Amino acid sequence: MKTLNVGIMGLGTVGGGTYTVLTRNASEISRRTGVQINVVMVADRNIEHAKTMTGGGVAVTGDALEVVNNPNVDVVVELIGGYTLSKELVLKAIANGKHVVTANKALLALHGNEIFSAAQKAGVIVAFEAAVAGGIPIIKALREGLGANKIEWVAGIINGTTNFILTEMREKGLTYQDVIGEAQRLGYAEADPTFDVEGIDAAHKLTILSAIAFGMPMKFDQAYTEGITKLAQADIQYAEELGYRIKLLGITKRTVNGVELRVHPTLIPEKRLVANVNGAMNAVVVKGDAVGPTLYYGAGAGAEPTASAVVADLMDVARLANANVEQRVPYLAFQPNSVADLPILPISEVESAYYLRLRASDKPGVLAGVTKILADRNISIDAMLQKEPSDHETEANIVILTHITLEKNMDAAIAEIEALSATVGKVTKIRMEELAK
Amino acid sequence: MKTLNVGIMGLGTVGGGTYTVLTRNASEISRRTGVQINVVMVADRNIEHAKTMTGGGVAVTGDALEVVNNPNVDVVVELIGGYTLSKELVLKAIANGKHVVTANKALLALHGNEIFSAAQKAGVIVAFEAAVAGGIPIIKALREGLGANKIEWVAGIINGTTNFILTEMREKGLTYQDVIGEAQRLGYAEADPTFDVEGIDAAHKLTILSAIAFGMPMKFDQAYTEGITKLAQADIQYAEELGYRIKLLGITKRTVNGVELRVHPTLIPEKRLVANVNGAMNAVVVKGDAVGPTLYYGAGAGAEPTASAVVADLMDVARLANANVEQRVPYLAFQPNSVADLPILPISEVESAYYLRLRASDKPGVLAGVTKILADRNISIDAMLQKEPSDHETEANIVILTHITLEKNMDAAIAEIEALSATVGKVTKIRMEELAK
Repeated sequence: MKTLNVGIMGLGTVGGGTYTVLTRNASEISRRTGVQINVVMVADRNIEHAKTMTGGGVAVTGDALEVVNNPNVDVVVELIGGYTLSKELVLKAIANGKHVVTANKALLALHGNEIFSAAQKAGVIVAFEAAVAGGIPIIKALREGLGANKIEWVAGIINGTTNFILTEMREKGLTYQDVIGEAQRLGYAEADPTFDVEGIDAAHKLTILSAIAFGMPMKFDQAYTEGITKLAQADIQYAEELGYRIKLLGITKRTVNGVELRVHPTLIPEKRLVANVNGAMNAVVVKGDAVGPTLYYGAGAGAEPTASAVVADLMDVARLANANVEQRVPYLAFQPNSVADLPILPISEVESAYYLRLRASDKPGVLAGVTKILADRNISIDAMLQKEPSDHETEANIVILTHITLEKNMDAAIAEIEALSATVGKVTKIRMEELAK
Repeated sequence: MKTLNVGIMGLGTVGGGTYTVLTRNASEISRRTGVQINVVMVADRNIEHAKTMTGGGVAVTGDALEVVNNPNVDVVVELIGGYTLSKELVLKAIANGKHVVTANKALLALHGNEIFSAAQKAGVIVAFEAAVAGGIPIIKALREGLGANKIEWVAGIINGTTNFILTEMREKGLTYQDVIGEAQRLGYAEADPTFDVEGIDAAHKLTILSAIAFGMPMKFDQAYTEGITKLAQADIQYAEELGYRIKLLGITKRTVNGVELRVHPTLIPEKRLVANVNGAMNAVVVKGDAVGPTLYYGAGAGAEPTASAVVADLMDVARLANANVEQRVPYLAFQPNSVADLPILPISEVESAYYLRLRASDKPGVLAGVTKILADRNISIDAMLQKEPSDHETEANIVILTHITLEKNMDAAIAEIEALSATVGKVTKIRMEELAK
C-alpha cells in the first residue's frame, strides 16, 4: 500500500486530537484512501507529553523546524497557532516542497495571500478545512459542493465562545458580565477573551470564507468587526418579543458596489434554522444563485471535531499529492489567474435593516419627533415596541425595527434622534438580517 | 483552455435546470475549474422543446443512445429517471469509456452495484451528488468531508413531498387526506404519490447514504419502509404536547449486530435542529465518531437546486477525468476491495424508543394492566399522557413514551396490550429517535 508521511507541529488540543483520530481510525482511513497515513514526526515544546502521547513509535522533537526540514516528511500539519513562527514554518515547508495542512485561521486571514502564492510556485497543496467552523466541512462545500453557483452571500455563527455566551444570556436572562466568568470556568472562553468576544476570531474565519466564496484575496484588514461585550440583556429580550434572536454573525455578501465583510451582533428571525443554533455549536448559511440557501451545522471547535477536518485534508492530500495542479481544487476556489481583487465596502456603505432602542422621557410628541426623523430620511418602520417606565424610572424604552437603508443614512438619523431634547443617552443600534433570499 | 464535452439525456425539470446553470454560470465555472464545460448534445423525447431551450448551438436528438454513442461526448448526464432504459444507457456509456453523472436514486439503489463494478473496470467516474437531497452536497460531505470518521449513523429528511405534507398537517391541524390534494395542486406531490408518501423514494436515497457511510453494497431490497399515509393528526398533536415533532426519517445506523436501514415516521425532540426543518426542505444529520453530529440543510428537489449538484459533479469530472483512479474518490467512499458486505438487521431486531397510543375504556385498572405488560418485558416508561374521553366517547386515549427496547419485544408487548379486554382496536406505534449521540 502507498504511504503518506506526516509531521505534526503542535501536539496540543487539536494536535492531540489529530494524532488520536489518525491512530484510532487508521484502518478505516486506509480502506477509504488506499493510502497508509503515517505520523513519522511530531514537534511540541513539551517533549515528555509528546513522547507519552505517541508512545515511542514516532520521532519527537522540541524544534518544529526539524519537522519542516525532515526529508522523510511528505506533509506538514501546522497546529501551533499564532502568525509569526507558524508563518515562517509554513513558508519553509512549502519551500522544501512539502504539502501543508493547517487549522490556523489567523495565519491565513493575515498571510494567506503570500502563503498561497508561494505554494502555487512550489506546486504543493495548502489545505485548511479545519481553519473555519472546526469539524463542519464548509470549505469543501463552498469550494466544491456549491461550485456551480454564483455565491451571493455567506452568513455564519463561526465562533463557539460567543454563541455559548449569547445562548446563556438568552436562556437564563443573564448579562454578558454574568456569563463570561462561567464561560471561562467551563473552558469555553480564554482567560483573556478579547479575541473571541470582540469578533476578531470570527473575522479571521469570515475573511477566509469570503475569499473562497467570491474568488478574491484575503482582506482581513478591511473587515468590520464588532463584538458582543456591549450587548444588553434588554435587547435580547426585546428582540425575542419581536420574534428575533441575536447572534454574532459573520456576513459576507456580494453587491454591485463591492463585497460586504462584517462581523457583528445580528437580529435573525427566530424561525430561521440558524437562529436556533445554540451553545458552542457553529453553523454557516450559504446562498447560491442556483441552490438557494443551504446550511451546515456542527461542532466548531474541540479536539476531535477539529481533527476530523485536519485528517480529511490529509486524506485529500493522500489522493492528490502527486496529481497535476489542475487536478486539485484551487486554494481560493478559483484558478489563481482568475482570482479578482473585488473592493470591500466600508460599513457606512452597507445596506441593512436595523433594530434601534432609545430611552426617552415619557411625554407626548417624542415618538412623533423620532418617526419624523426616520421618515425624512426615507427609513421605513417595520415594527415598534414602547415599554412604559417602571416605578423608579422616568424614561421609557422605545424599540424600532426599520426596513433596509444605508448605514450612513441610519447613523445620520440616529445622530438627530440623540440630539432631541426628549431622548436620553445613546441610541442602541443592532443590524438585522432576514437570511431568506 | 481545456474543454469537457457534455451530453445531457433528458431535458425535463432537472435537465433544463442543468442546461440553464451551465449556461448562466459558464464564466464562473471555468474560472473555478480552468476547464470550459460545453454541452454538445442533448436528447429529449420532445425535440422541439429541446431545440427551443438550447437555441440552435447544440445537437438535439430524440434518441438518447445517440448521446451515449457520440464520440465527441466525454461525459454523459443521465436525467431520464426510471431504471430500465436509464440502466441500459448508463452501462452503454460506461462501456464506451464515458464518465457518467446521474441524479437517479432509483437506478443506483437498485443497480448501483452492477454500475459501479462496470465503471471500475472501464476506469470511468460515475458521480451522483444530485441523487440524494438535491442541492445539498451530502455525498461529498460523507465521502470526503467526514472521511476521517467512523460514521455511526445517518438520519435525514430526504423526501420533500412528505416533509411538506407533515409540516402542513402540524401547522394547520389538517389530516393527511386534507393535505395530499393541496400538495398535488402545488406540484409538491405527483398524481400518484405512492413513491413519495410510502417512503420508497426516501428508501432509495437512504440506501445510497448507507452504502457510502459504511462502505457496503447497495441493499435497497432489505430496507424497511413505512410511509406517512396512516399517520393521524392526533399523534402529531400528542407528540407536540410531549415536546416532539414527527418527521419521515431515513435512518441508517451501524451496530455490533449489523446495519439498520429504515424509513418511517419518527418522533424527534423539538429542540433538535432537524425537527425544525419545515416545508419541502431536506436535511441530513450525520454522526461521526470524531466530529460528533453535523447537519446539512437545503432544497432537496427543484430544477436549479438539483442542477447545482449535477454541475458540481461535472466540475469534479472536469478536474479528474484524466486522473489516475487512485486520485479519485471511490464510488462508495471506500476502495472497491475494501467494500464490506455488512448484514442488514430486520426491523424486528432494531432497537428503538417508542411512542404508543391506545384507546381503552375509562375504568380503573386499565393503566395497571398496560404498565404491567411493559414492565414484564423490561420496557421502561419515559412519559405518559392520558386524555379523558370527550362527551360522546367512552374510551380514553393513552399515550406512552418508552425507553429503548428491541422491536420484536415491543411488538409482543403490543399484542398483549391489544388482547386486554379494556383496550379497543390497534395500538398506534411510532418510533422515536433522540439524534443526540
